[in-house]
Amino acid sequence: MEKHKALEIVKKQITEHRYQHTLGVVETAIDLAERYHANREKAELAAIFHDYAKFHPKEEMKQIILSENMDRILLEHHSELWHAPVGAYLVQKNGYVSDEEVLGAIKYHTSGRVNMTTLEKVVYLADYIEPGRHFPGVDEVRLIAKSSLNQAVIQAMKNTILFLLKKNQAVFPETFHAYNDLVMKKGDEDHYE
Amino acid sequence: MEKHKALEIVKKQITEHRYQHTLGVVETAIDLAERYHANREKAELAAIFHDYAKFHPKEEMKQIILSENMDRILLEHHSELWHAPVGAYLVQKNGYVSDEEVLGAIKYHTSGRVNMTTLEKVVYLADYIEPGRHFPGVDEVRLIAKSSLNQAVIQAMKNTILFLLKKNQAVFPETFHAYNDLVMKKGDEDHYE
Repeated sequence: MEKHKALEIVKKQITEHRYQHTLGVVETAIDLAERYHANREKAELAAIFHDYAKFHPKEEMKQIILSENMDRILLEHHSELWHAPVGAYLVQKNGYVSDEEVLGAIKYHTSGRVNMTTLEKVVYLADYIEPGRHFPGVDEVRLIAKSSLNQAVIQAMKNTILFLLKKNQAVFPETFHAYNDLVMKKGDEDHYE
Repeated sequence: MEKHKALEIVKKQITEHRYQHTLGVVETAIDLAERYHANREKAELAAIFHDYAKFHPKEEMKQIILSENMDRILLEHHSELWHAPVGAYLVQKNGYVSDEEVLGAIKYHTSGRVNMTTLEKVVYLADYIEPGRHFPGVDEVRLIAKSSLNQAVIQAMKNTILFLLKKNQAVFPETFHAYNDLVMKKGDEDHYE
């Protein structure tokens, strides 16, 4: 699918503010894909569609999670997490994306997971550090992202977990396992030279 | 087993410093058991034996974890976690403790777990706040422990997880699941009036 066509489809699903965020994620994901040798086109496509379901009605997302046998634990956690797997499902169902790697990058862009692919890390990180993001700690992650994809993803996950702990909120298990997975592998993985 | 006999057994296994810590845990566990209606005698016994394996040789602990089919994930994490399940195993094997609840409180005193019993929470917390403990955040947990067992355990777990995250270290999954379990149940559980 051509880029402008894909952007048109997404634009109809989300707010203008979220669309501007999406453009930032696209730009950042392409940069990161080039820096860390992920497929540029796949990164772009995943970034365009990553928030496709962001404003999908909650009740419908819940039904999809149930009917498509997605991880039920999602329903015990914040609905903010639902749009990622539901978005991957919908863009595939609607015939916009068929590539499994791209679908994975959409599916795990909010939670992360154990054994993330480079493409998944790129989209996860792009979503976190795109230029429109402003929150404590984001500049540190931007800086780390210049030299290590893994360290930057670890730092982003750490910030997310710390934020939730400080609010006495539950942490989605997949995010926690993804963090552990990355810190336990540290040293084995690629660094950008 | 009489208290002085149990203390004598433990004293031979650990350093003087650790023995003083154990006495602090015993005293605190009894207080907490009375406040939160756990069995006083079981709390005392679990507290006496909680660090029985603290100075057991690492290689032997590893062999016990393997031969007794304990959770292999322990071996991927800090050996500091091993003495709790290994201690529970040894005090049972040596005929010092047979009560399953007491053994559970020893086994989970470092990691915590999902669905902790009141006795397990009492020993976990006593180990964290006994008067000999001095580290950032301990006074806050002591204060919370006066009014809510669950909140105090949540706060202790939070501190432990934050400490590990800040050092970029992995968090033992059971601790993380225990934290989630407690914060997700919040409101359902007993508060001391």
